[in-house]
Amino acid sequence: MIIVLKNGTSQEDINKIAGWLSRYNVEVSPIVGAQMTVLGLVGDTSSVDTSSAYLSDHVDKIIKIQEPYKRANRKMHPEDTIVTVGGVPVGGKKIVVMAGPCSVEGEEQIIDIAKHIKQSGATIIRGGAWKPRSSPYSFQGLKAEGLDLLNIAKAETGLPIVTEITNPGHVEKFIGKVDCFQVGARNMQNFELLIELGKARIPVLLKRGFSNTLEEFLMSAEYILSGGNENVILCERGIRTNETFTRNTLDISAIPALKKLSHLPVIIDPSHASGKSWMVESLSMAAIAAGADGLMIEVHNDPPNALSDGAQSLTYEMFNSTMKKIGAIAEVVDREL
Amino acid sequence: MIIVLKNGTSQEDINKIAGWLSRYNVEVSPIVGAQMTVLGLVGDTSSVDTSSAYLSDHVDKIIKIQEPYKRANRKMHPEDTIVTVGGVPVGGKKIVVMAGPCSVEGEEQIIDIAKHIKQSGATIIRGGAWKPRSSPYSFQGLKAEGLDLLNIAKAETGLPIVTEITNPGHVEKFIGKVDCFQVGARNMQNFELLIELGKARIPVLLKRGFSNTLEEFLMSAEYILSGGNENVILCERGIRTNETFTRNTLDISAIPALKKLSHLPVIIDPSHASGKSWMVESLSMAAIAAGADGLMIEVHNDPPNALSDGAQSLTYEMFNSTMKKIGAIAEVVDREL
Amino acid sequence: MIIVLKNGTSQEDINKIAGWLSRYNVEVSPIVGAQMTVLGLVGDTSSVDTSSAYLSDHVDKIIKIQEPYKRANRKMHPEDTIVTVGGVPVGGKKIVVMAGPCSVEGEEQIIDIAKHIKQSGATIIRGGAWKPRSSPYSFQGLKAEGLDLLNIAKAETGLPIVTEITNPGHVEKFIGKVDCFQVGARNMQNFELLIELGKARIPVLLKRGFSNTLEEFLMSAEYILSGGNENVILCERGIRTNETFTRNTLDISAIPALKKLSHLPVIIDPSHASGKSWMVESLSMAAIAAGADGLMIEVHNDPPNALSDGAQSLTYEMFNSTMKKIGAIAEVVDREL
Amino acid sequence: MIIVLKNGTSQEDINKIAGWLSRYNVEVSPIVGAQMTVLGLVGDTSSVDTSSAYLSDHVDKIIKIQEPYKRANRKMHPEDTIVTVGGVPVGGKKIVVMAGPCSVEGEEQIIDIAKHIKQSGATIIRGGAWKPRSSPYSFQGLKAEGLDLLNIAKAETGLPIVTEITNPGHVEKFIGKVDCFQVGARNMQNFELLIELGKARIPVLLKRGFSNTLEEFLMSAEYILSGGNENVILCERGIRTNETFTRNTLDISAIPALKKLSHLPVIIDPSHASGKSWMVESLSMAAIAAGADGLMIEVHNDPPNALSDGAQSLTYEMFNSTMKKIGAIAEVVDREL
Repeated sequence: MIIVLKNGTSQEDINKIAGWLSRYNVEVSPIVGAQMTVLGLVGDTSSVDTSSAYLSDHVDKIIKIQEPYKRANRKMHPEDTIVTVGGVPVGGKKIVVMAGPCSVEGEEQIIDIAKHIKQSGATIIRGGAWKPRSSPYSFQGLKAEGLDLLNIAKAETGLPIVTEITNPGHVEKFIGKVDCFQVGARNMQNFELLIELGKARIPVLLKRGFSNTLEEFLMSAEYILSGGNENVILCERGIRTNETFTRNTLDISAIPALKKLSHLPVIIDPSHASGKSWMVESLSMAAIAAGADGLMIEVHNDPPNALSDGAQSLTYEMFNSTMKKIGAIAEVVDREL
Repeated sequence: MIIVLKNGTSQEDINKIAGWLSRYNVEVSPIVGAQMTVLGLVGDTSSVDTSSAYLSDHVDKIIKIQEPYKRANRKMHPEDTIVTVGGVPVGGKKIVVMAGPCSVEGEEQIIDIAKHIKQSGATIIRGGAWKPRSSPYSFQGLKAEGLDLLNIAKAETGLPIVTEITNPGHVEKFIGKVDCFQVGARNMQNFELLIELGKARIPVLLKRGFSNTLEEFLMSAEYILSGGNENVILCERGIRTNETFTRNTLDISAIPALKKLSHLPVIIDPSHASGKSWMVESLSMAAIAAGADGLMIEVHNDPPNALSDGAQSLTYEMFNSTMKKIGAIAEVVDREL
Repeated sequence: MIIVLKNGTSQEDINKIAGWLSRYNVEVSPIVGAQMTVLGLVGDTSSVDTSSAYLSDHVDKIIKIQEPYKRANRKMHPEDTIVTVGGVPVGGKKIVVMAGPCSVEGEEQIIDIAKHIKQSGATIIRGGAWKPRSSPYSFQGLKAEGLDLLNIAKAETGLPIVTEITNPGHVEKFIGKVDCFQVGARNMQNFELLIELGKARIPVLLKRGFSNTLEEFLMSAEYILSGGNENVILCERGIRTNETFTRNTLDISAIPALKKLSHLPVIIDPSHASGKSWMVESLSMAAIAAGADGLMIEVHNDPPNALSDGAQSLTYEMFNSTMKKIGAIAEVVDREL
Repeated sequence: MIIVLKNGTSQEDINKIAGWLSRYNVEVSPIVGAQMTVLGLVGDTSSVDTSSAYLSDHVDKIIKIQEPYKRANRKMHPEDTIVTVGGVPVGGKKIVVMAGPCSVEGEEQIIDIAKHIKQSGATIIRGGAWKPRSSPYSFQGLKAEGLDLLNIAKAETGLPIVTEITNPGHVEKFIGKVDCFQVGARNMQNFELLIELGKARIPVLLKRGFSNTLEEFLMSAEYILSGGNENVILCERGIRTNETFTRNTLDISAIPALKKLSHLPVIIDPSHASGKSWMVESLSMAAIAAGADGLMIEVHNDPPNALSDGAQSLTYEMFNSTMKKIGAIAEVVDREL
């Protein structure tokens, strides 16, 4: 970290600041130039609270050189991390597609969907049991029953399960019944939940909040990693912008950016990003072309009558066609489906 | 709700849609015009899932006439709601100022701050015990000990307590120790937490998420109200925009807007909105001039050495001066401090 | 257009509104239902000013059914439009790549760049002569001289020219020296400029404003089209969002969206969208995979010493590699480079 | 400016960078610390193009210490600037209110409005002659005739005129007919227009673009100031955010921020910021409470039948009531109306 002092800061104030900084166990080396003085901080500056008024009184600017995330940082871990979800490696050469309904609605439904997506090449099933909804009057999911139905579908097809957890108190309940926890966009900064998941040893698919920066996203991954759980998958699902034609705006640049900044696998959710089923195929192709490790796609047996998010769910036919296109793109980028 | 059908929608499809809508217990009256057909939905349409693909296939546009929130809606409750926090009415003629440090740091500190803010006219003390921080390496608050220290300060000064809760599992732990729960911006859509707070009978100060709309804000209030807890205070604390000079952008328009849409009290947090202590006074005056019912202001005994958010904390002198200015503005808008 | 009246609007008021609407030459058919009354407007409602206070007094909601743009609307023009730039068709099966420096800096430079990009497969040369810069102290371009240098490069290579125009008074000066006008993002709503370009008969590459919606984008295209110039190419170049890691955020969804809403060709500028040369290749591949008709890419003979935007310019080697990858993606989507 | 070099940058590369920087006539003093090397740039760094790829290859971070604007910077000009518009000082103790219709519609209308707003205390009349509209099919203003009508109203009332200019070619046409040019939000970065206005000697009211930062805003003011025209008035009129209840979001913090960063007068346009006439009064009071030097308010003789922006225009009665409230707030902040 570099701290540029205001002109005319006295040696006494410099010492004061250095003293104040000592609490963070960083080495402070004043660098005195002809026209300005800067303090170079060496060591782990990730915990230095730059919002301190003391600093703001004597400091012109602060530059963070070290990213605030460590375990998520590619600099600390150059090779790609591969997270294994119920036997399926995520982050390797093989593109992973997680598919299924927004909400688990019944046994017949989830089994039927699982069989069809497997036929088309999906290797993980997704389905919501606990559904966070912006209205208390909307369908909230089948909860525990939904979890059981997902396991019946898994028994039928062998597909591992990824499903959303919304409450730190539910972790125990989920263990043994899920192959990967999903943290939704609205909970990306639900730190109490992240801390509990950091104690678990099951992979976590972490969705980016709809208005969070990539740095905040990686800091949330850091919460899980620093707790001891190294199995984190990053998922970009669209951010909120001035454009309202789409439900959100898919940040395609997040793929090369996250790949450069971090070693964690990156997957894309084109269904929530667009909110429009007719857009999912082209966005999926774009994501793989840009280097994504996989996709999370909503597929429903009967979109018109889905209990949630019908408008963004693919039919079996649409999904099958999308998978073929993705496979062709994968080859171009030296990946395989 | 009005559903405008696409041209050439067959009577059969109209019937199908009407049938589909029947699940929501709404009365569907087709309105057939010379050039277009629209479906008028009468009844409680708040649970109609407009994202259904079925609709999206046959429908040109959907207009919600009824706001999705009911209990928070001024139409259902014309007169202002007054929420009483430990004996202090919020939402009446008297402007309420909640002040205190970002984090409770120690007994001496919190007592000293409590005494000073009381002298200046604050009537509620705020202080963080559980601190959600974007970095796992930052100070996370004194937790349970912080709660006890707040109660010591309350015993000394008689000021009721508002403090943040971040985990639905903590509600029991807080009851008896807080006069008002605070839900932070990052937890505005932590529905599991909102549902638990809806079961409590203690007031809840709900902060707006930094990228949430007013409608989403009121829907989150609706979660608490629909659970049976009618004591909700709305708090605007700045939204994330393209402007980075300030930490966030205070949405001053939210005051008249929320006052028109809802009957709940509205307070403003100029400290988090700006992130700059030198801006707090002018933003506080603006907020009262615009019709806010109160303010939440960060005050610290020694901002330079605050463990968090020092740069946005007022000294005792700054706070005292701000209170005087607020009082003068209050008179102009026929309120009192 | 559908106008939903407030409950209890008197017949007299309905007649008043109908009378008020008559100025727009639209047919107003009141549709009276059991519980609500709506006015259906038939005809060209694109000029109805929905911001009228009269309406806002008696109206609950207004729904536009007809998009406000007509000539740019695919509904009015189902087949794709192909715009020919100096003999090069844009919008057909062949992917078009426009490449060159941010600014034309000298004769040797622009000729050298033109030859190299042509070798790699680019078919149009781009280069800035008039440079809109946010600082009055930054290099503003070679202006008229830059235009002449572009023409020398054209003479050497046969590549048609696209360059930015920033002043409605410059149109005459540009005619005969450019094959395609470029309207920069900051001028997307410079209507005086759009009106002048509508009178010209040379193609216009219209860049999307960095905070404009797709509807506003198409309305700006409508200005040019309604002036009689049907040769408009749409260019998405990134929008401003909360994410600051990239210069802007490429809105990849704009490709399928614009293709559905309009018949005009769509190209992508990954250089300005990301601001980072190392991201250009993956974003270019994503754009073609998503269905873009072409790309505009910054290439410089010596990026380190570029007078502007060096950090986002590709070297000849990087550009050549990118072109190979684009070609491979093009095949998958049944296009060719 | 501080340039932090990447670890292991060779002396040769340091020399190369220093040489490259020499083109900008800045003194480069390398500051070599134990663990890192930074380059301190002294002199006018406002023209240094930090986007250079050369820098980006060897540099970890760049910190601008000097703001890129000079003439607009309060550091260079500590005392407040007072701009005189047709004899009316803007920026002094007296709050200035500019009022009038969105568009000049006719002689009788504009005279009637001018008389009424003068009675209520407005001292400058605003009215649009050239109207930039997002649709080519909307009313575009009376143009030259509108300018003449404004002058008739001025003759009747003595109120100076502020009106929008949208074309650099119109400056001559406006001189002698306007007391203050208005640059609309969409033209804030129409640099060709700003350059022409910099050559004029008539005051310019510069509106902030709806997605521009305060730094970009002040850089646009710098274009006018550096051209030799020192009479610039800054106008905040709302920014585009995720909130859609209001037309834009009034950035109230921009008032204290601009007052700190610059010496130029700051006025607020609550009409465009909110788009809702019922919000104008409370936002106006907030603006004056926060330290604004004045307001620009839309007033119409018959809002229901306004040819544009009727929904945000005040009636005479509403305007008169608003003026009384503003006057009361002005006293509290030691200003007068």
